[in-house]
Amino acid sequence: MRAPIDVRVLSPITTKGFRRPSDLKALEYDGVVVSHSQIEHGPASIESEYEIAMSVPGTIAKAIEAEREGADAIVIDCMGDPGLRAVREVVSIPVLGPAQTAMHLAAMLGHRFSVVTVLDSVVPMIENLAKVYGVDEKLASVRVIDIPVLELETEPERLTTELAQASLAAVEQDGAHAIVLGCTGFLGCAEAIAATLRTHGHVLPVIDPVPATVCMADGMVRAGLAHSKRTYGMPRDKELRGYPEIGIARYGA
Amino acid sequence: MRAPIDVRVLSPITTKGFRRPSDLKALEYDGVVVSHSQIEHGPASIESEYEIAMSVPGTIAKAIEAEREGADAIVIDCMGDPGLRAVREVVSIPVLGPAQTAMHLAAMLGHRFSVVTVLDSVVPMIENLAKVYGVDEKLASVRVIDIPVLELETEPERLTTELAQASLAAVEQDGAHAIVLGCTGFLGCAEAIAATLRTHGHVLPVIDPVPATVCMADGMVRAGLAHSKRTYGMPRDKELRGYPEIGIARYGA
Amino acid sequence: MRAPIDVRVLSPITTKGFRRPSDLKALEYDGVVVSHSQIEHGPASIESEYEIAMSVPGTIAKAIEAEREGADAIVIDCMGDPGLRAVREVVSIPVLGPAQTAMHLAAMLGHRFSVVTVLDSVVPMIENLAKVYGVDEKLASVRVIDIPVLELETEPERLTTELAQASLAAVEQDGAHAIVLGCTGFLGCAEAIAATLRTHGHVLPVIDPVPATVCMADGMVRAGLAHSKRTYGMPRDKELRGYPEIGIARYGA
Amino acid sequence: MRAPIDVRVLSPITTKGFRRPSDLKALEYDGVVVSHSQIEHGPASIESEYEIAMSVPGTIAKAIEAEREGADAIVIDCMGDPGLRAVREVVSIPVLGPAQTAMHLAAMLGHRFSVVTVLDSVVPMIENLAKVYGVDEKLASVRVIDIPVLELETEPERLTTELAQASLAAVEQDGAHAIVLGCTGFLGCAEAIAATLRTHGHVLPVIDPVPATVCMADGMVRAGLAHSKRTYGMPRDKELRGYPEIGIARYGA
Amino acid sequence: MRAPIDVRVLSPITTKGFRRPSDLKALEYDGVVVSHSQIEHGPASIESEYEIAMSVPGTIAKAIEAEREGADAIVIDCMGDPGLRAVREVVSIPVLGPAQTAMHLAAMLGHRFSVVTVLDSVVPMIENLAKVYGVDEKLASVRVIDIPVLELETEPERLTTELAQASLAAVEQDGAHAIVLGCTGFLGCAEAIAATLRTHGHVLPVIDPVPATVCMADGMVRAGLAHSKRTYGMPRDKELRGYPEIGIARYGA
Amino acid sequence: MRAPIDVRVLSPITTKGFRRPSDLKALEYDGVVVSHSQIEHGPASIESEYEIAMSVPGTIAKAIEAEREGADAIVIDCMGDPGLRAVREVVSIPVLGPAQTAMHLAAMLGHRFSVVTVLDSVVPMIENLAKVYGVDEKLASVRVIDIPVLELETEPERLTTELAQASLAAVEQDGAHAIVLGCTGFLGCAEAIAATLRTHGHVLPVIDPVPATVCMADGMVRAGLAHSKRTYGMPRDKELRGYPEIGIARYGA
Repeated sequence: MRAPIDVRVLSPITTKGFRRPSDLKALEYDGVVVSHSQIEHGPASIESEYEIAMSVPGTIAKAIEAEREGADAIVIDCMGDPGLRAVREVVSIPVLGPAQTAMHLAAMLGHRFSVVTVLDSVVPMIENLAKVYGVDEKLASVRVIDIPVLELETEPERLTTELAQASLAAVEQDGAHAIVLGCTGFLGCAEAIAATLRTHGHVLPVIDPVPATVCMADGMVRAGLAHSKRTYGMPRDKELRGYPEIGIARYGA
Repeated sequence: MRAPIDVRVLSPITTKGFRRPSDLKALEYDGVVVSHSQIEHGPASIESEYEIAMSVPGTIAKAIEAEREGADAIVIDCMGDPGLRAVREVVSIPVLGPAQTAMHLAAMLGHRFSVVTVLDSVVPMIENLAKVYGVDEKLASVRVIDIPVLELETEPERLTTELAQASLAAVEQDGAHAIVLGCTGFLGCAEAIAATLRTHGHVLPVIDPVPATVCMADGMVRAGLAHSKRTYGMPRDKELRGYPEIGIARYGA
Repeated sequence: MRAPIDVRVLSPITTKGFRRPSDLKALEYDGVVVSHSQIEHGPASIESEYEIAMSVPGTIAKAIEAEREGADAIVIDCMGDPGLRAVREVVSIPVLGPAQTAMHLAAMLGHRFSVVTVLDSVVPMIENLAKVYGVDEKLASVRVIDIPVLELETEPERLTTELAQASLAAVEQDGAHAIVLGCTGFLGCAEAIAATLRTHGHVLPVIDPVPATVCMADGMVRAGLAHSKRTYGMPRDKELRGYPEIGIARYGA
Repeated sequence: MRAPIDVRVLSPITTKGFRRPSDLKALEYDGVVVSHSQIEHGPASIESEYEIAMSVPGTIAKAIEAEREGADAIVIDCMGDPGLRAVREVVSIPVLGPAQTAMHLAAMLGHRFSVVTVLDSVVPMIENLAKVYGVDEKLASVRVIDIPVLELETEPERLTTELAQASLAAVEQDGAHAIVLGCTGFLGCAEAIAATLRTHGHVLPVIDPVPATVCMADGMVRAGLAHSKRTYGMPRDKELRGYPEIGIARYGA
Repeated sequence: MRAPIDVRVLSPITTKGFRRPSDLKALEYDGVVVSHSQIEHGPASIESEYEIAMSVPGTIAKAIEAEREGADAIVIDCMGDPGLRAVREVVSIPVLGPAQTAMHLAAMLGHRFSVVTVLDSVVPMIENLAKVYGVDEKLASVRVIDIPVLELETEPERLTTELAQASLAAVEQDGAHAIVLGCTGFLGCAEAIAATLRTHGHVLPVIDPVPATVCMADGMVRAGLAHSKRTYGMPRDKELRGYPEIGIARYGA
Repeated sequence: MRAPIDVRVLSPITTKGFRRPSDLKALEYDGVVVSHSQIEHGPASIESEYEIAMSVPGTIAKAIEAEREGADAIVIDCMGDPGLRAVREVVSIPVLGPAQTAMHLAAMLGHRFSVVTVLDSVVPMIENLAKVYGVDEKLASVRVIDIPVLELETEPERLTTELAQASLAAVEQDGAHAIVLGCTGFLGCAEAIAATLRTHGHVLPVIDPVPATVCMADGMVRAGLAHSKRTYGMPRDKELRGYPEIGIARYGA
């Protein structure tokens, strides 16, 4: 019997308390433990390309640390998948982005899917990710609830109501056959949304990206799979200036 | 601690002994058991659309049986994913096709992937599946080794050599960054192929579809996900003639 | 003067009387006779992937029979094109699916087309066919009238009204420049729909798939064309179990 | 018994004798007569966008004349489909381009097709037509034999040999499952090419565009279909200067 | 200091006074002069494929003249880009179509763009151009104001209002992030539309195609770039009949 | 007469002397001055996603500085377009990426284009950019010369030879009709490559991305255009930790 799989959830924002230990604990199951880390340098939340960019150096540093500490896989805790490609270059353990994973899962489970997310400002980002990941033909729409990330917790009931309404519109107007929750801050809302959809006669998967990605990370480790080093080769050794406090000095093969 | 997940591998061909119990046993891990069933009516092997068609009624019957027997998920044991969409309509537990699962995994792990399969006759089938699954932009090529399914076991060394050569050509000539083994009869060959590729300097995933799909099936069950009933709704109740011995009489909601 | 072209219309459902001799007779013209056959084993009607699957073995048997009886071409009488690819493998005469033919015709005749069909449950099937046939860029939308196949004849006026309304919506809201009737049970409705559209100022083709496909089958025979055996090669000779009563024992080259 | 269908073949080049009456006569069959006309103003042959452009005003004039003379359908006799869209605006009878028709036929008959044509200069034109017609996903390649149109007749044996070689390369290197002859000047070469391919073990359709398009034109007339007036509406009435000798003065609805 | 760049605006319609000298003068800036010419044979305005076709021979003649007169670049003054490909074959200086240029610019500046144009009849033309130019994935929608070209000047206020409304609908309903004015007759309206959009909270580019294309033409000349002669090779020398008064006799390399 | 347009070339690498003042001076012309800045924190060169990521914070800082100093437009001096989307969010002046600009230019000038670049490691990056920019249908291939960025200057003759050979292969084997130089370190090589191609009979544009992008930046400023704020909205005001020395403290609207 092998040691449990350690899936590291890496939060690429600096706001403390955004991710509760109990929430992550709830994602564990037989043979899987969920560890957590968080960047120290970067944005308070991510709702723009600028914030994506500012979150990546810290995410790279924490990913290298996670591999060094023995994590079996890394799940980046943001639906912008910040740094997914860069991180894959510098570590060998599987690195999963919840956007990539949840969108591919949705593409497998239904004819088309919609993403329901926070703000208009992240719609191009999500649509661009769908293109790069090769699932844009399966993307029916991206809908927004117009609540910023850092206000998600202030009115939990309004959040669930807005998400259910947007999901219902995606199903009935855009032809969605599956829903992907488009912000990892929506953790735990999937069941309530699915229940609302069922009351309207629609039985379909509502994918909560972090739990789903943790399970897929476990599956990838079990299957002995990791990202291609032909796509994500270790960078060549060369000088890097100006990131001492983030903990990356000189790096590369 | 919940009961182990029972993943049912369902072989849609009638040739006995094609799937060895020890091979399936080797796919089990903590918390996952692999059960097996096989169709009784249908083709000896699958290398054409005609054989796909002839394998599906039996596959439907065995899938209904699997759900009734308490399986948690079904993996159809053929890279043509025979009956995947039909079976999903008549059962509620997750049903996974190795072609769909392995191609989506490959799309997640590398920039582009190639499928290496048995015969020219299945190339259009695989390319059509890639289109329907929405991953065709990620498919670099489909290559064949020109060995029929029922001869795969006669010369195991030649099999591995041919697969490694075709995979190498896919990487160096077609730009593949990941390889999907395109026949479930290639079970167990992935590591040798990956090793050969590494000796040529190419470090990339070689996906053995049945093991990988079993792990993903486990992950889906853990994540509480199944296919969309909006896409795969239970058929309406109506008369069906002529399938008594296959065990399907009248079916539907 | 050569013998008339014999176009065999093959109905892949078991409901008797669904296809009236007089309706088929009306499709004949100088040099073309329309013969008919129907499967004996399979579903009463087709509105799901499960029913598609259950209709195919019988369709294969009847197609082999049609070729043996001297038919010049086969038209499968269902907009799911059940068994089109499998049947093409086992016969050499042209085999036409009304979905494939009507969608390609519509793509030739107008900028974009919509399909108007029976139920939500067949929408993914039609969209997947459009992808595989390579005409999805031309498909504006698929609209449904929400009447099951076996109820189409109960209220002929309501049928025509609903089809005309859905077609009008496709033209005015989805940008359709041609309409494809998405169920062969809509035979004979095209002219009334086109007339309604004209009263709203829209002059465009409404394609009744069975008559149009019969004419195209005639054209293909006249042009000496049939499907590619490179795509649809004869299956290899091998054992097939369990289809004695359907009349397929052992088959292949 | 209705009068025979009159399919007008309209040659959009000014070279006399390029199209022999006996060749067109050979395309007739029971119920179909083939009439012919030719532009008087325009290029000697078509191998460029410039020549396409210069051939269109005359083609429009001759198409209006054909409809006035009672033709049932028009087939434009060039694989650039010169004026196809413009002509469809000014006449109501079906107007078929051999490129559009042959490419859609090829897409229906095989998994992918290649076009074999005269010169490099027409490759972008053919690929652009495939995009606009919505069949580019089915186009495997365009290959050239590097013989100008007006030299096709000088060495008929070399022509057939070059076409067969290019077709064989398309099949074996580009994955073509059907061949479209990419110049209407290749009339009559299809059977010899198909025979050569068969000697290499490839049984697949080689589409001779003019005969195939004549048969499809007949089929369209029989089916009562013509191009959409929503796509190809009659132009608004307005002044046109400078085309008196081409016979178009003022035109439009 | 080099001589100013001479950008020739070539109007492919015969209506006199449509293009005012003062409007073109306003497009000049340091180092750039704008010259003008107009076809003498062809349609009064362009709203159909037929009119596109009738405008091209004259456009070719005037483009050859422009190059002979020393123009540095040519801008075709119509959003149908009539003759763009043909003209590029017969001249070497850069030839720009405002549709191609403005759509590529819009694709560069925003996530998706809409085109707002005159009449339904030109929508397929614009969508086809987007396909051929390779920007159709970026095209959110084409909207029309339903005012014919030759009536644009009669009610300038209504024109601006209709354009602003259609643009607003494109932004709010179709997801446009940039607007392309879809008729060169809309010259000068961009700023008013952008202002209206701003009052609704939308800050985005509204591209006036002729001014933008003049600037891009200047940029191309400065960069030493012109269209590829591999795509747009000089036609082969051959006889051309019937265009003496348009000034093209025999042409080609 | 307005003040000259100031186009700021912003080099996102820390290697001093990589960009020579004389090279930038040579890009100036009447009415255009080229200013320069360079990041102080980040990688020595860019050949991976990791280095892209590490270059972006500094690039953002320098872009904000450029706008504050009165630059009229910014050209990011790397074919990975590092930070293009993030930078556009935080400034209002036009920001151009040479990859985006050169690929759109190439798509406008020829039927298809190839990119010739440094190393295999950047191929996925360039292909992903082509997808996001919407020009992937026009991209024939990406070829590499296998010389790292920091060795480009060591053997200038070998560099030109390798680039010419790769370009020739792109034209003759991949069907490229235009070439985009895929590294801004190739500055100045375009003419020699074009000359070599001409000796092989191929007359086509070879786009040197920095000079071409400077000219397009000038054109955009002249046309009064900038990126859409609907796509690239100013980020919301929120805390950012850990970038003091890069000069970004707290940012946003």
